[in-house]
Amino acid sequence: MKPSLPKGTRDYLPAEIRKRNYIFDIIRDAFHRFGYEPIETPAMESLQTLTGKYGDEGDKLLFKIINNGDFLSDVPEDIYLARESKDLLPLIAKRGLRYDLTVPFARYLVMNRNQLKLPFKRSAIQPVWRADRPQRGRYQEFYQCDADIAGTASLYSECELIQLYDSVFAALKLPVQIRLNHRKLLQGIIQHCGMGERFSEVAGLIDKLDKMGFEKLGAEMGARGFDPKGIKNLFRLIQDPTLSELKQDSLNELVKTGIEELTLILDLSSRVGLHNSVVFDPTLARGLSYYTGCILEVVAIDANMGSIGGGGRYDDLTGSFGMPGIPGVGISFGAERIYDLMEEKGLFPDHLQSGGKLIFLSLDAECMSYTFGILMDLRKGGLACEFYPEPAKINKMMSYANDRGFDYVALVGLDEMNASKVTLKNMKTGEQKSVNSTEIKDNLNF
Amino acid sequence: MKPSLPKGTRDYLPAEIRKRNYIFDIIRDAFHRFGYEPIETPAMESLQTLTGKYGDEGDKLLFKIINNGDFLSDVPEDIYLARESKDLLPLIAKRGLRYDLTVPFARYLVMNRNQLKLPFKRSAIQPVWRADRPQRGRYQEFYQCDADIAGTASLYSECELIQLYDSVFAALKLPVQIRLNHRKLLQGIIQHCGMGERFSEVAGLIDKLDKMGFEKLGAEMGARGFDPKGIKNLFRLIQDPTLSELKQDSLNELVKTGIEELTLILDLSSRVGLHNSVVFDPTLARGLSYYTGCILEVVAIDANMGSIGGGGRYDDLTGSFGMPGIPGVGISFGAERIYDLMEEKGLFPDHLQSGGKLIFLSLDAECMSYTFGILMDLRKGGLACEFYPEPAKINKMMSYANDRGFDYVALVGLDEMNASKVTLKNMKTGEQKSVNSTEIKDNLNF
Repeated sequence: MKPSLPKGTRDYLPAEIRKRNYIFDIIRDAFHRFGYEPIETPAMESLQTLTGKYGDEGDKLLFKIINNGDFLSDVPEDIYLARESKDLLPLIAKRGLRYDLTVPFARYLVMNRNQLKLPFKRSAIQPVWRADRPQRGRYQEFYQCDADIAGTASLYSECELIQLYDSVFAALKLPVQIRLNHRKLLQGIIQHCGMGERFSEVAGLIDKLDKMGFEKLGAEMGARGFDPKGIKNLFRLIQDPTLSELKQDSLNELVKTGIEELTLILDLSSRVGLHNSVVFDPTLARGLSYYTGCILEVVAIDANMGSIGGGGRYDDLTGSFGMPGIPGVGISFGAERIYDLMEEKGLFPDHLQSGGKLIFLSLDAECMSYTFGILMDLRKGGLACEFYPEPAKINKMMSYANDRGFDYVALVGLDEMNASKVTLKNMKTGEQKSVNSTEIKDNLNF
Repeated sequence: MKPSLPKGTRDYLPAEIRKRNYIFDIIRDAFHRFGYEPIETPAMESLQTLTGKYGDEGDKLLFKIINNGDFLSDVPEDIYLARESKDLLPLIAKRGLRYDLTVPFARYLVMNRNQLKLPFKRSAIQPVWRADRPQRGRYQEFYQCDADIAGTASLYSECELIQLYDSVFAALKLPVQIRLNHRKLLQGIIQHCGMGERFSEVAGLIDKLDKMGFEKLGAEMGARGFDPKGIKNLFRLIQDPTLSELKQDSLNELVKTGIEELTLILDLSSRVGLHNSVVFDPTLARGLSYYTGCILEVVAIDANMGSIGGGGRYDDLTGSFGMPGIPGVGISFGAERIYDLMEEKGLFPDHLQSGGKLIFLSLDAECMSYTFGILMDLRKGGLACEFYPEPAKINKMMSYANDRGFDYVALVGLDEMNASKVTLKNMKTGEQKSVNSTEIKDNLNF
């Protein structure tokens, strides 16, 4: 049997894991310093929890798990004979795989509310699953890295999340721009242009502006029957205005609230020294319908890539689980895209590529036990090192050491063993050095 | 809607994740020092890869994922109308969730063989899923931590894995005994007792010895029709003999090979100073049928708990995926049981319990921005610290700080702000101290 992977999934090689963990470790360290406590939820959730939370399209993309045992036994005869997949499904599947980290977090908050203190700040780095059509760079299993604050409406939360973004991308040495907008501002503008009743649709269209441009978008909106005057008005208001220009217009209360909050957030952010710029972007819309306040997005500078992070405020995180009135705000890091960008720009440290620093090669079967003893002492002392575990020709072993990218090789033959020494060889320069077996660690620097 | 979790799954609270990560970090550090490179495989595997690898019972416990879209469309009419779950299943589900880390590793080796050098040492810490009946301490989603060496028959591998166990349990401060046996020795003994044709059954029965005791096991074997003389002989051979006693008997070639290999492994292990004892245990059988060489198991000292780790050598890891002749040996850490034992014995460091070291509380809304600035500087400097993000009564904030277990509170009112200071309060002793805002980090020690 020739093995294969399900489409849209992949294996990770060691160097890929080391690089991915380099990103995760930097994100995790920032989560820790900023007080976002780690939580975990199971990969499997009840379909009741997941269904209806991501729109019709999302429901289709959920992976559903067949009930164990004789899963057909409780299906009523008439439904079975009708043979409709969508009607049979809820009767034979009670569980699904997590689709994002936000809905499970809302469920978590409700179910664990007695053990949590609000405001509660959580972080999570976990895979999610979506039955999307696989494409280059789009997988059916991928990681999300989320930070959320639940239980406070304070705008300091937005500022903190901006700084969290800034801190992570500074540590990754990846220059970015952090873009802000406000759902209420957007809503106010759209209302002012007489399109209030089609808010979601217009927000969705504005979300496509960076792909379509104003001209195409205008044509599309015209074709959808929007009033040309309204479109013109809308484009004037979202095309490069500053917050203070918008403020002078004082269109309506929604716009006013949006501007006030954005001004405060931008003002606070400008006072702490950030590495990256934070800008107001009136064309930022973000697709997800549950955002109600500030929305934000991160874009890498000088890169041909969509957003590598995004988030926003939602007024009612847990309402659909029976606990209304808990506001929240959260952000997410797009780990896969960050990985691809880091690779493209050569930002991963060199040492992540190599299999290790030092490998021992025994030139004689009799030396193996001696070599093994040294190895164990070094590992106890905290040094990561390796060992070729069986007698082999020197050429074979050297080529193994070379292919795996070790920096140094420690050669041990009978001469070395009898003198309690090893011969260290620098694999880059070819330089060799005879070293006492107890002084190896201090000699890995030539 | 009242939310719930699928049975057999659970949420992790922050303190639980911190404790679990404490264990994982120690295991991961040892994996790194010992040269076991991290890999990852997807949660979803083709059912073709998984089915038939874990016995009939295992096949039943696999979680299967329904094909997306109109999953009934390709089911032939006659099969559909027969309405048999087991016949319908393979037609509507192509994928399943990973059941362990070994079978995916074998598939991984075959599919990635051109990018890997043998011997290849891998590590993996990932969840697995089994539709077992949930019990106290037994979940349907749990973590496995595995280290394996593929592509060498060297017994140094077994020694290294013993030392890896020793190193991890020493770092966890959890005293253990590492027990060894050998499948060939067991096989030779069972053959010698005239039960060779029922080897798997007898090995399975011996595996239950620690639960049943010799008397009950003898009765059970008698009831199953084993010859009383053979049973007596078997019990004599597996009841507390030393390797040298067994050696003198020189029963057959299998026994001889087993004894030779075990002697070598025990001898090598005794030469490197271990923290824990390694003993020969002729009653150790281990259930999994694919083991062919040395088998090992770890048991905590002074604990009423089954094994907290186990593994062994398998001659043909990848044969079922079309790549025969690759030997392997691997071990696994039982993370859940280790967690429970550490909790029971109070071995987790205290600081894992608390939400953090320092939280800032603003006594006045006007001070929040000042406080926020200090906080950001500290975080930039690497200190993890927190902030109550909205104006609130001091009692409410103090109780929040207390409930979350912070060591210190930094109080900031107008007086503090005007003097560029904060008041630090030790939450255990109640002691207070006025400190310059730039000297907070150095003052968290009273």
